Amino acid sequence: MPESLPADSVGLVQPQSLHFDQPLELDCGRVLPEYELVYETYGTPNADRSNAILVCHALSGDHHAAGYNSMEDRKPGWWEACIGPGKPLDTNRFFIVSVNNLGSCKGSSGPNTINPETGRYWGPDFPIVTVRDWVHSHARLADELGIEQWAAVVGGSLGGMQVMQWAIDYPDRLRHAVIIAGAPRLSAQNIAFNEVARQAIMSDPEFHDGYYLQKGTLPRRGLMLARMLGHITYLSDEAMRAKFGRELRTDQINFGYDVDFQVESYLRYQGQSFVDRFDANTYLLMTRALDYFDPAAEHDDDLTAALAPVTARSLVVSFTSDWRFSPERSREIVKALLDGNKSVAYAEVQAHQGHDAFLMPIAQYMAVFRAYMDEVAAELEEGA
Amino acid sequence: MPESLPADSVGLVQPQSLHFDQPLELDCGRVLPEYELVYETYGTPNADRSNAILVCHALSGDHHAAGYNSMEDRKPGWWEACIGPGKPLDTNRFFIVSVNNLGSCKGSSGPNTINPETGRYWGPDFPIVTVRDWVHSHARLADELGIEQWAAVVGGSLGGMQVMQWAIDYPDRLRHAVIIAGAPRLSAQNIAFNEVARQAIMSDPEFHDGYYLQKGTLPRRGLMLARMLGHITYLSDEAMRAKFGRELRTDQINFGYDVDFQVESYLRYQGQSFVDRFDANTYLLMTRALDYFDPAAEHDDDLTAALAPVTARSLVVSFTSDWRFSPERSREIVKALLDGNKSVAYAEVQAHQGHDAFLMPIAQYMAVFRAYMDEVAAELEEGA
Repeated sequence: MPESLPADSVGLVQPQSLHFDQPLELDCGRVLPEYELVYETYGTPNADRSNAILVCHALSGDHHAAGYNSMEDRKPGWWEACIGPGKPLDTNRFFIVSVNNLGSCKGSSGPNTINPETGRYWGPDFPIVTVRDWVHSHARLADELGIEQWAAVVGGSLGGMQVMQWAIDYPDRLRHAVIIAGAPRLSAQNIAFNEVARQAIMSDPEFHDGYYLQKGTLPRRGLMLARMLGHITYLSDEAMRAKFGRELRTDQINFGYDVDFQVESYLRYQGQSFVDRFDANTYLLMTRALDYFDPAAEHDDDLTAALAPVTARSLVVSFTSDWRFSPERSREIVKALLDGNKSVAYAEVQAHQGHDAFLMPIAQYMAVFRAYMDEVAAELEEGA
Repeated sequence: MPESLPADSVGLVQPQSLHFDQPLELDCGRVLPEYELVYETYGTPNADRSNAILVCHALSGDHHAAGYNSMEDRKPGWWEACIGPGKPLDTNRFFIVSVNNLGSCKGSSGPNTINPETGRYWGPDFPIVTVRDWVHSHARLADELGIEQWAAVVGGSLGGMQVMQWAIDYPDRLRHAVIIAGAPRLSAQNIAFNEVARQAIMSDPEFHDGYYLQKGTLPRRGLMLARMLGHITYLSDEAMRAKFGRELRTDQINFGYDVDFQVESYLRYQGQSFVDRFDANTYLLMTRALDYFDPAAEHDDDLTAALAPVTARSLVVSFTSDWRFSPERSREIVKALLDGNKSVAYAEVQAHQGHDAFLMPIAQYMAVFRAYMDEVAAELEEGA
């Protein structure tokens, strides 16, 4: 809990919710007859809402990207580093919308909400949604909020994939695309890690084919394993070395399978605490959305062709020690944009924090991000 | 099953076994009152057995390193690429001993063998053995086989750690140390992967605190997950891309959690088939032996000091795409040896196969390995 709210924080914020009655046709062929989207906003819209920015979240993220929901909150939103007065996504200039994705477990319709048609938890019957489905639903949110064109759509990791999809599907509705720690599609290794995580969850006897909520239980072990594994891929080898090395938790090794090394203790804690705040069906769904994202697939694996509709100018940012979505993957996006004669700025930030770097206030990253967003703000002022 | 035995194979071989009555004091403080070691030999010993080479195996390896145990075998031993007539470990010149480590599940005393004191499976009560314990037990095997000094001790991965320990603990008993795809100790990331694998096994309800054999069951799911995860770390991102890419198993994605991608199918198969041929308690024990190996720890993290006793000349080999034990880790060994004025040759082999490269007949690797072993053979002839 913050003693007092930091001056550069958006402070206390409340989530809002919108109900959508218009059915949403999904990539999988199914239709969501109605659904709820939860979101937060930071900053103030200008008259024509041309200063609106959409923030897209990653696998385990949600709409709570900045500030505090109450004075009892121990931590601020997940992108506090980047959103707030004077920060790259400057709430003195921009009106920022952060939406919780369909299929999540944080308020928007998803496996842990009630299916209005049955009165029971959706559970595993919630349809598998894709990045495109999310973007489609977010466009409807924009309609409801009276936002015709985003000044920018912004996101890291899986969020960056949503940004790409926005730029492809709704080229007229965003002026800038900011793709951070992203990839044009998962590699076989990425899919492999997701598959192990899913198998961990689905092979947990408490999974009950996904109907665990009905059974009043949780696949705790499986979800814990999935999160532990995820964490290894979010951190770099270097970051783990810096953070834990081979440090022992006690004076000497115990010749057993209890915690010997600090890194074991850290991972167990991360895994165990995740279980209390995340839903296993959502984890499956989010990893599958990652696996399936592949805009080039419909264009004979030609990413340049897939990005042909893009009119937004882009900023692409990668981090040197990110081995989950390495700089190489960002460069694929940059190259495809350049090959298509699109405007793109690219920064490869020196950082040892691995994939998680996109969440952190790393000086070079902040400088690049801020400089780019200053330009976006300057355009707004020129337009005004 | 081979139609006929290849000319460059050692052909049909039979494992042998030796019982040791002399108690073995272990690093953990416990004592093994008696134990069995299973091994195979290839080639013919010379009069003074100075042409003997010890092969040390890795995590899931065993004594069956080359040839076939029967004409029904579908595959030869795990190091068929390197052991045989005309191969780097040339059975026309060397007498090769390949031993199964204590704690394994392939014949030597371990969790899946009977504790003679109780008449029941050792299970989780088998002591946690270390790399040093193995080397100690292998030295006794050398005594029994009348081998005073190995021409070389050779191993990859965890096998390479045993080679280092041999060179430190018994400097007079080996002339050459061949350390392939090794590391002077695990990184935090390495330990983290091991920890997830162990948690997968131990959180399987069929684990029963390790007493699953007594219960007539197996922690199949946990061991499968551990193996799937291991496999990702044995292959490089590049190798996975080359092998599977994002290839689908059927024409289109199924919008579910069944197998969509070839890599998922491969991993599931690898995981499932492992369960039928490996023991979960052994997996725990082997990963812990990996975690604990750290010869520099007793010397204020000074690897050069740890390697001070070494008199063997060394060959160190690493593979460019190995991210489990990267070339950087091998270079730490090389640097420490050089700083201690030891004789060491180092080769960093261009290979896209990742850590598993050490098992494969990669031309540059074979050339380096053969050239080095030719020198070892030449010394023998000079000595003769």
